[in-house]
Amino acid sequence: MKPLYENLQVPGPVPADTLRVIPLGGLGEVGRNMTVFEIDGKLLIVDCGVLFPEENQPGVDLILPDFSAIADRLEDVQALVLTHGHEDHIGAVPYLLRLREDIPVYGSELTLAFLEPKLKEHRLQDTELHQVAEGDTTDLGPFSLEYVPVTHSIPDALAVMIRTSAGNALITGDFKMDQLPLDRRITDLRSFARFGEEGVDLFLVDSTNAEVPGFTTHEREIGPVLDQVFAQAESQVIVASFASHVHRVQQVIDAAAKHNRRVCLIGRSMERNMKIAAELGFLNIPEGVLIDSREVMDLPPERRCFMATGSQGEPMAALARIADGSHRFVELEPGDTVIFASSLIPGNENSVFRVINGLMRLGANVVHQGKSLVHVSGHASAGELLYCYNIVRPKNVLPIHGEIRHLVANGRLAVLTGVPEDNVPLAEDGVVVDLYDGHAQVVGQVPCDYVYVDGRSVGEISDEELKDRMTLGSEGFVAVHAVVEKSTGMVLAGPTITIRGVAEDASVFEEIESEVAEALAEAARPGNVPAHQLQQAMRRVIGRWVGRRLRRRPVIVPIVTEV
Amino acid sequence: MKPLYENLQVPGPVPADTLRVIPLGGLGEVGRNMTVFEIDGKLLIVDCGVLFPEENQPGVDLILPDFSAIADRLEDVQALVLTHGHEDHIGAVPYLLRLREDIPVYGSELTLAFLEPKLKEHRLQDTELHQVAEGDTTDLGPFSLEYVPVTHSIPDALAVMIRTSAGNALITGDFKMDQLPLDRRITDLRSFARFGEEGVDLFLVDSTNAEVPGFTTHEREIGPVLDQVFAQAESQVIVASFASHVHRVQQVIDAAAKHNRRVCLIGRSMERNMKIAAELGFLNIPEGVLIDSREVMDLPPERRCFMATGSQGEPMAALARIADGSHRFVELEPGDTVIFASSLIPGNENSVFRVINGLMRLGANVVHQGKSLVHVSGHASAGELLYCYNIVRPKNVLPIHGEIRHLVANGRLAVLTGVPEDNVPLAEDGVVVDLYDGHAQVVGQVPCDYVYVDGRSVGEISDEELKDRMTLGSEGFVAVHAVVEKSTGMVLAGPTITIRGVAEDASVFEEIESEVAEALAEAARPGNVPAHQLQQAMRRVIGRWVGRRLRRRPVIVPIVTEV
Repeated sequence: MKPLYENLQVPGPVPADTLRVIPLGGLGEVGRNMTVFEIDGKLLIVDCGVLFPEENQPGVDLILPDFSAIADRLEDVQALVLTHGHEDHIGAVPYLLRLREDIPVYGSELTLAFLEPKLKEHRLQDTELHQVAEGDTTDLGPFSLEYVPVTHSIPDALAVMIRTSAGNALITGDFKMDQLPLDRRITDLRSFARFGEEGVDLFLVDSTNAEVPGFTTHEREIGPVLDQVFAQAESQVIVASFASHVHRVQQVIDAAAKHNRRVCLIGRSMERNMKIAAELGFLNIPEGVLIDSREVMDLPPERRCFMATGSQGEPMAALARIADGSHRFVELEPGDTVIFASSLIPGNENSVFRVINGLMRLGANVVHQGKSLVHVSGHASAGELLYCYNIVRPKNVLPIHGEIRHLVANGRLAVLTGVPEDNVPLAEDGVVVDLYDGHAQVVGQVPCDYVYVDGRSVGEISDEELKDRMTLGSEGFVAVHAVVEKSTGMVLAGPTITIRGVAEDASVFEEIESEVAEALAEAARPGNVPAHQLQQAMRRVIGRWVGRRLRRRPVIVPIVTEV
Repeated sequence: MKPLYENLQVPGPVPADTLRVIPLGGLGEVGRNMTVFEIDGKLLIVDCGVLFPEENQPGVDLILPDFSAIADRLEDVQALVLTHGHEDHIGAVPYLLRLREDIPVYGSELTLAFLEPKLKEHRLQDTELHQVAEGDTTDLGPFSLEYVPVTHSIPDALAVMIRTSAGNALITGDFKMDQLPLDRRITDLRSFARFGEEGVDLFLVDSTNAEVPGFTTHEREIGPVLDQVFAQAESQVIVASFASHVHRVQQVIDAAAKHNRRVCLIGRSMERNMKIAAELGFLNIPEGVLIDSREVMDLPPERRCFMATGSQGEPMAALARIADGSHRFVELEPGDTVIFASSLIPGNENSVFRVINGLMRLGANVVHQGKSLVHVSGHASAGELLYCYNIVRPKNVLPIHGEIRHLVANGRLAVLTGVPEDNVPLAEDGVVVDLYDGHAQVVGQVPCDYVYVDGRSVGEISDEELKDRMTLGSEGFVAVHAVVEKSTGMVLAGPTITIRGVAEDASVFEEIESEVAEALAEAARPGNVPAHQLQQAMRRVIGRWVGRRLRRRPVIVPIVTEV
């Protein structure tokens, strides 16, 4: 494949007879999926999700797509269409709606049900939610939409066919092609074929598993494995999985029911989501199987099953608390069984294995994907993607949803099925692709940064400040403060050194205090030497000494108060 | 298996006719391997390695074994025996020798050659290095040692049979059982069998791969794969691997030579180690294959091969610099090939994939373990361990080298081959195992903490301070300073707020300054109110406000200067 584009300019306005695609998230990362389509001065947005921070983004709660490219165009937005209810597709919706509350939102029943609590939390009341289902069509100005069912690791997911005067775009959302899904709602390849006959000018395809050869195993193959684990379990069973994986929870509930166990849901999101899913009929809980946390401990251990969050080793989640013996009511005993019915998301290895080691230390029997078939992916593997390309036979392909390595792998698959390499633009977030006269090509790039949510602040913390945090976190800081009499330049107090997170005893710094005092006294002449000059003088001496003597580079914070 | 022991006491002195084993590192983690044997008042130490920090140990350079349990017994140490030259087995030797420089050190030729530069760096000159080889025996007071060759991912590795009056202990070091290793130096199962006949009372066995079913693939199977990749490469080839993996580098050199490429070693440790290995005859470099970094760029791209460090995504290593375009002289071009001839050590996924994405962004073809057989492990898988147990038929087994999950898996394998569960003690660092009358059992625990090397400080930073760093790193700090006149209690200046790493504009804090001023004025009465009381008053107000208003918990640093 070709390298990614470099040094692109911001493109001009959309030319006539052109469909423009502006990915604002999800291309170059796994998360914060958001794609903007534009034609005839109108915008259509598909998905608006969050990305979870990595270790080089410390303290950040969430990362949003960068809305700045469309911030002054929000009145032109015809609609926001959501393909399914995962956080990386709906999590940033409230932040977008805070900019314009009455953007019409379209999505399936479960997707909207998972969105609603978020809108409430952000006190958004004026948004119109339009429920749509497979087979429905929606006309929105220059965009004509048709919704298609796809299988994923959450029920009620949709792909969207977008018809415009400049051509048709088909966006898969997240999907796989399990031919025997639990709810028998398969990815609708008949519609994909029909669209192919009609002509798909641009096919935007989920790249997550494009590097994985072959085919994703059927979700239902997990059932017999769970059944066997439950059959052998002699004491408590604890299952950890994702709080939105309705079908996985269904299989756990079925296995528990069969083996005469009652299920206690633990973790706030697990409880809330499963309540919604059950109310809407996506989850089928047999009478008397669920049990409340206040009653479950009255059952004998061999009748208890806990369905918990925390499968990624999140330190505050239920499972981590069970592993370190600090959970409110679940107490692990030797001989208990813990099942990780979940993937191990890359980057979470240390925290997950920390939890697993903790559980095994207490004598638990731990069952996970590495040992037994207790998880399958929600995304199409390479083999499935090839089927897709051959059925749709798209004119152009834009790989979406993935890191560069996933996008490249997906693009290669498209080329293998006969799509000309020139018609497979590789794009990152912000890279603009125009579809004109049947050909899609990169025409420029709009700014697209990480937008950090941190406490109550949105977009206020910069990459520069994150670097500051990284330094503080690995090196700590040395603050030095002194009081200087403005009129005389006399040093009234200090310099005194305060340290935090530095690998030294505070007494070590006595060695340098006199040198700092000298530097300060020298810099502080009578008559209003600005504080920042005095601060500079102290910073220089301390910085040099710390680097040489301690071999570290902590943050140096000089504070001079003039009185 | 049984859960690990809890609430153990420090054991009394070693009883008569007893061999005591005190693991000071490597049991409960992958790294800092160190095992102490004691009998008749004398100590023998096997290995003394370092552990590399995880993300919850920010800023730490290295983690050492905790020597405190033997710190006042160093004169009783007969010898330190090193099984092989990896950092996790020799990296902490200088720190131990700094406590007693003349501990006699035993190891194979290559192991000692890898140790020597470390001793120089720490200016240790009085240590006697005793070179030993397979088949050699050494009598050291109550310990009689015999060295046995084992195969590992570094040449010249040894297992050690330790004979004592209380029984025989066989410690494998790190090993695998490749039956066709490159240097034909196989793990000596004939000696293992002989020891078995004689009687192995305690078998200490590498657990690293005990969870991996089957058998580790032969190192030599990588050769043809490299050959094929080199045959297809049309431009530059860059290979990343571990700087100590002599056989892997050998295979790369052979493939490069065959395909008329010259090899440039990049990365300080790669250059140094391969120089040592070549001088000692462990690495065979054909005449005219190596090329200097000053000349390599004069060759056409299709004749260049770079052998680099950085396979774990280390941001300062050669490969990461190549991936982000900042390397001193290697410039990646579209169509270049990059081979990760290395494992992906759990926990490094994010940094490794960051590098891979960077390389692919520039148009490189990236080959790694997930796609092609370009790496095999250096440790015995479950299948090999079973052979081992059946050949040795040990009376007792102590799983070493691994996290809890590895130790448990290894213990299970021993039990499967017929070792009674009661004779397979599971121990963590510091847990003391006594071998008496043919039975090994846990008798107590000595303190065994993480000892952090941080800049020039060793063991000075505590877990408490690391928590401080974690908070600083994710939340930043809010410092507030004020000057108070001691005699009158008048506030002369401030309170002024300084922030770093907090996700807010400094102006937000103006809102609280007056409230802090009031609190301070109230607390500061005439006549020497201690500064810490005034600081407390400011901390309370700010802490409460920040939590409520900003929803964050930064470190609060109140500073009051009294003049």
